[in-house]
Formats: sequence, structure tokens, C-alpha cells
Amino acid sequence: MCELQVKGKNAKQASYQLMNISTQIKNDALKRIAENIVLYASDIIDKNKIDIQNSINKGIGQQMIDRLMLNEERIKAIAEGVRQIADLEDPVGEVLSMKKRPNGLLIGQKRVPLGVIGIIYESRPNVTVDAASLCLKSSNAVMLRGSGDAINSNKELVKIMKMSLAEAGINEGAIELVEDTSRETAANFMKLNEYLDVLIPRGGAGLIKTALKNSTVPVIETGTGNCHVYVDETADLEMAYNILINAKTTRTSVCNSCESLLVHKNIKDKFLAEAVAKLREKNVEVRGCEETVKICSDVIPATEDDYGREFLDLIISVKVVDSIDEAINHINKYGTGHSEAIVTENYTNSQRFLNEVDAAAVYVNASTRFTDGFEFGFGAEIGISTQKMHARGPMGLKELTTSKYIIYGNGQVR
Amino acid sequence: MCELQVKGKNAKQASYQLMNISTQIKNDALKRIAENIVLYASDIIDKNKIDIQNSINKGIGQQMIDRLMLNEERIKAIAEGVRQIADLEDPVGEVLSMKKRPNGLLIGQKRVPLGVIGIIYESRPNVTVDAASLCLKSSNAVMLRGSGDAINSNKELVKIMKMSLAEAGINEGAIELVEDTSRETAANFMKLNEYLDVLIPRGGAGLIKTALKNSTVPVIETGTGNCHVYVDETADLEMAYNILINAKTTRTSVCNSCESLLVHKNIKDKFLAEAVAKLREKNVEVRGCEETVKICSDVIPATEDDYGREFLDLIISVKVVDSIDEAINHINKYGTGHSEAIVTENYTNSQRFLNEVDAAAVYVNASTRFTDGFEFGFGAEIGISTQKMHARGPMGLKELTTSKYIIYGNGQVR
Repeated sequence: MCELQVKGKNAKQASYQLMNISTQIKNDALKRIAENIVLYASDIIDKNKIDIQNSINKGIGQQMIDRLMLNEERIKAIAEGVRQIADLEDPVGEVLSMKKRPNGLLIGQKRVPLGVIGIIYESRPNVTVDAASLCLKSSNAVMLRGSGDAINSNKELVKIMKMSLAEAGINEGAIELVEDTSRETAANFMKLNEYLDVLIPRGGAGLIKTALKNSTVPVIETGTGNCHVYVDETADLEMAYNILINAKTTRTSVCNSCESLLVHKNIKDKFLAEAVAKLREKNVEVRGCEETVKICSDVIPATEDDYGREFLDLIISVKVVDSIDEAINHINKYGTGHSEAIVTENYTNSQRFLNEVDAAAVYVNASTRFTDGFEFGFGAEIGISTQKMHARGPMGLKELTTSKYIIYGNGQVR
Repeated sequence: MCELQVKGKNAKQASYQLMNISTQIKNDALKRIAENIVLYASDIIDKNKIDIQNSINKGIGQQMIDRLMLNEERIKAIAEGVRQIADLEDPVGEVLSMKKRPNGLLIGQKRVPLGVIGIIYESRPNVTVDAASLCLKSSNAVMLRGSGDAINSNKELVKIMKMSLAEAGINEGAIELVEDTSRETAANFMKLNEYLDVLIPRGGAGLIKTALKNSTVPVIETGTGNCHVYVDETADLEMAYNILINAKTTRTSVCNSCESLLVHKNIKDKFLAEAVAKLREKNVEVRGCEETVKICSDVIPATEDDYGREFLDLIISVKVVDSIDEAINHINKYGTGHSEAIVTENYTNSQRFLNEVDAAAVYVNASTRFTDGFEFGFGAEIGISTQKMHARGPMGLKELTTSKYIIYGNGQVR
């Protein structure tokens, strides 16, 4: 039997125990995980050094190596994250509604775990602990398939987490790491319907696309964000500058940052030159439509392709639009359904934007950067869903559950 | 451009209008659909006769032809179903929660349509109208891909529905029929991610399996039900007989009917002989385990395969189990996660069954036959979801929606 089968079976078995485990035991396990990863930090760092050396030998770039790197400080931050998850409310077991039917049947809908969650992710080893902790708190077993670059770090982290599970009396199958990091095993992992209830890819657009295309396990699509800020003709321009600069420049590598600016034609002369100047102050490269180039002649002309891109960098595309209709259509055409903002003082336009833009989060007069589990008040999240099935927007603990109907009868037949 | 592209585009375009359409207009369209299909019943029946003749020529069996057949009475029943959908509460637009964050952002979660729903289904033409009406009421555009056997009936029904949409002022792209019923087009339909937000297969296990395996559009799995009735040692035996006979024999072809009986060993002598006799009175073929055969020597020995089968027929598998644990494990191993029932007077066992059986609907002392949108009080449904993602159990109008976060700010940046 191959690794996926063995570990799939272990995880499935553990998931039955997790279905009915108390919050106390889960929190105990989480607290032990937090303690143990700090206690064994030097072991983790030793293994992490092997991963880093291997990556250097393979000629992997400095930015990637930085993502891979664990030190005491980062390990403490990971442990703190686990403690925060322990402090979150347990979503499992809540009865969302319960009603008596005319025939006397009492029908309730109860929140229950999904079962076994598969996570496929790229090199950051902190995801190993974050994802496992969120799954554990929501009573799901997890199968982790990280990248080969982090395999030694991941094995050590999972070893410590399994030890912590055992200390708390939880079946160790609750957290399984797929150690074979070949592409072939990744492909099989995406088809492990026998054991996986859902697959969540965490990483770049390439990984997510591959999972969507190849997985027969239901996938939750997360993370690609081609987010727009639309400055309407009635916008408060100071507010618009603030929101634009915040959404574009505070953290370019994240999915909720702004990639494209739309400006109503009636304010282009008042707004655009200064907006471009402010963006440049922050070293943002501006790629604009013809109208933009007319106003700021040194702006690089934008290609069709630029409007569809998630730059994740200090680059922004700019387009002047004739109306809010054009803005909405442009966003619905080029956007990825993540986060979209309008800056306006016009009531009707604010409502139209909220209603007609098809995205997980739509903002009036605020930065797109708020689309985040903590900012929304849910606590830690497993990702931002940009699909419409199951969950949309920040996926906290509740989004890692499903429901079942529980029916109390006294002999009813139909 | 091929049919799928043209109609996909039409449906997508219509879906934007549907996002913000009033309940009044939707109900008006539904009422017109109900009126018009009765008004044009003779046209529908004429086209249906062509389908039936073609099917007879192809040598299709009588049962299938009966499913395909439309007459005035059936058309009136379809129209009545549409009126009932018009009477259901509109799920769209409800704000599920809205909270003020410490920074003053007001964040709400609002129920919105999914967008464009693809339905792939087999020969019953009533599905054409049922599915389109449910999608319309939930503000979704729909692309229907029915079987070639019903194509003339479906074309006529969709023509009438499009006319009704136009009368109500709704974009006709809201209901599109894929007229090319080739396998190749079905395969492409399952990969129409550009336009479809979700795919719901309605039909036999083969169709659902094909969709799950081949679709890149997110699929909602519906309908396969290998449902069990477990008679615990403390069961009220009269109640157990009633529930068993009801669950097995009232309608064998539906997914919520019972396919397998589990009996606690301590009551096998008291219960089994009479249970088998009562099943046989209803012409049910019994396939039992060794213990069952010991008690009723003329019972056909069950194979391993029998326990995993959805007979959809007057056949039942029977197994004597040593304990409730064995019953739960058996159900979790062989069941399809649809509907499962325990008959018991023991409190702890009732709770264990509800908690530990992993299915969409779990019953204590009632027939599995209640898993149904009307019986649950939701009204018409598009199917019974047996998966855990997005929706589980009867899928009414709410389950045909998703949500979006709407955020009201006054200049907040992060």
C-alpha cells in the first residue's frame, strides 16, 4: 500500500474520533503544540538548516530562501498563532436551527467537521502548523502535502505535533504529512477522493490552477486577487489618494492589495496627475490607458494583458472610465472576484457598486487591504476563498465545517 | 463560436441582470411560465410525441418511455410546481449578519446568487422546468443540458419559458438549453468554467460519477442513497417493522429509500423472522448474512457487493451486528452519506448514532424517507446533496445562493 493510502486511512480513522471530541481536549492539544514547538525549536532549526542548504545548492533565489527560513523568533510567532487558534470559539456542534414539523419530527441542522482536509502548499513551513491547527480546532483531520524544499522542516514540525496529539490523547492520524513530494504523488493526492473530503491549495496562481484542473476532490479556490480601486466622479479626493496608496503599497505581495485603478473621466484632470505622482513617490510603476498617458505623458501605456494581471509587485494599471457602468463591467470582466473598492460620495453609485460588482468583498470608501480573517473579526483563516461554492471571502473555522441534519422522531413514517 | 460559448455568454450576461432583479419580477415570470406551459400544452405534447416515437424506434424500454412521457395532467402538475416555487420566500438579498468593527468599518454578509448554474440531467422533461424555476427564483441563470431522448420536449419547454421571461422583462439568456446532446458537448459543458459557477448533475449514479470525475466546474453531488435502518437491541419492534417497511417499500426508486437492514444480535431471534416475512409480503427480495440465513433458511446469502449497492428496487440486504459500534462502522463504510436511521429506546445509543454516523441526515425512530425538501419544510429542491461542501441534504433555494461581504467605510485604511 502506498504512502497516500496508509496515511489517508489513518486520517480518515482519526476523523471519526475528532467528530466527537471535546473542545477542552482539542485546546489542550493545541497548547501542547505551541509549547512543544518552542521547546524543540533547536531541533526544528537544525532540520530547517538542511532545507536551506539544499535550496542554496539548488540555486534557489534569496526571496524564496527567506520564506523557507525558520529562526527562534519565527517559531515563537508560529506558537503564538497556535495559542490564538486555541482561544477561538469552537464552531463544531452548534445547532444552527431546530424546528418541529407538523408530523412531530424535530429536525435540526448541526455544524459538524468536514472530515479530512487536504492542504497542498508551497515552501513556507509556517503553513504546516497554521493549517494543522485550524483543522484540529475545527475537528478535522488533515493531510499536508508541502513542497520538497521544506520537507525536513515539515517532518520535524509534524513529528512534534503528532507527539503533542498523543500527549492530549488524540489519534495521531489527525495530522499526517505526505513525505513523498514528487509531482506524481501530488497528482494522486488531488484524486484521493476515498479519504479527502476537500482540498485546499495554498500558494501561487500556478498551484491553484493545477489543483482546479486536476483535482477530483472538491477544491476550495483561494487567493488570487486582481483588486481594483474605482474613484468615482464625486469622490473625496484626499480619501481616494489615501485608499489608493494604502491598497497598493502597504504590502504588494498579498492577494488583497490593489492592482488596478479606475478613474471617472470627469475627475481625471483633478485627480490623475497627483495620484500618479503619489504612486511614484512610493516607487510604483504606472501603466495607463491612452487617457492616462495624455495627462501624464511619461506613464507606460498599459496593454490589455496588464488589466488582467495580478502583479503582486510595485506596479499598477490605470484606466479612465466614462461611467460607473463601465467601471463595474471592467471589474466584472478583469477581476478575480476577490476585493473591490469604490470611492464615492454618491449614494446610488455606492449601492450599485455593492450590488453589481461580483466579488467576495466589495467596499465603499475603504481600502481593499481589509479582506482578512483578523480584520473581519473571525481570527486566523486558512485563506481567502474567491469561489462561490461553500465559502466566499476569509475562511475561518466556521468555513472548515459542514452541517448534518439530525432528526428526532417517535415512529414517524411517510 | 460554438453553442456552449454563445449560450454561456448569454447566460453570464443575464446573470448580471438577475443579481439585482426584484422578487416581484421573478414571481411574475414564474407565474407566466406556469400559465404558458398549460396554455401551450398541446404544442408540448406534440413535440413530446416525437421524442417518444424516436425512443420507441431506438428500442428504449417501457419504464424509460414512461419517464419521458408528458400529458395534460403531468403538464398541469409541472405548472403547479412552478407556482409553488413562486410562493417560496426569496432567499436573495438577505443580510445574514452585519457588525461594526473597532475601526468603524461596517461589515455585512449578504446572500447573493451563485451566478450561472449548469444542470446536466437525464430523460425526464419535468426537470427542465423544475430546475429552471428554482434557478430563476434564486436569481441564477441556468444552462440546461438534458438528454437527447427528450430534446424536442425540452426545446419546446425552453421556448415557452424564454417567451415568459421576455413578457416579464427578464433577459432571455436567464434560461439556456444546450441543444447539442452529444457526449463531446457534455464533456465540454463540464469544463465550461468561464461561464458556469457550479454544475449539478441530476440522474443516475453513472452520470454523477462521470461529472465528478471529469468536471472542472465545481460539482454538487446529489442523489445516491445506500440508506440503512439499524434496529437496536432496545427497539420497539412494532415501530421497527413500520419504519423498515415504510423506508423500503413506499417508493423503491428514490434515493431516500432503505437499501439495507442492520439488526442487533440480541433481538435477531425475536425480530428477524417476522421482519423478513413482512418484507416478503411486499415482494421484497431479502439477501442476508450468515446469521440471517440461519434464522430464515430460504434467504439468499448476501455478497460483500450487496452491502455496497443502491438497489433502487424491491431488494434489501440484511446483516446481524454484534453492537452499535459495528452498526456505525458498517454504515460509515458502506453508506453513501445520505440518510441513516436507528430504531432504539436507548438514550445513549440514539445520541451516539446521531453524532457518529457520517451522513447528510441521521434519524432516530423515523423513516429515512423524510429526507426531502418539502418534508423538511424548505419547499421544492434541486436534489439531495450527499457531499459536504457547500450544501448537505435537501438543496432548496438557499442552497442555490452564495454570499458576499459588503463593507461600508468612511475612508479607513490599514
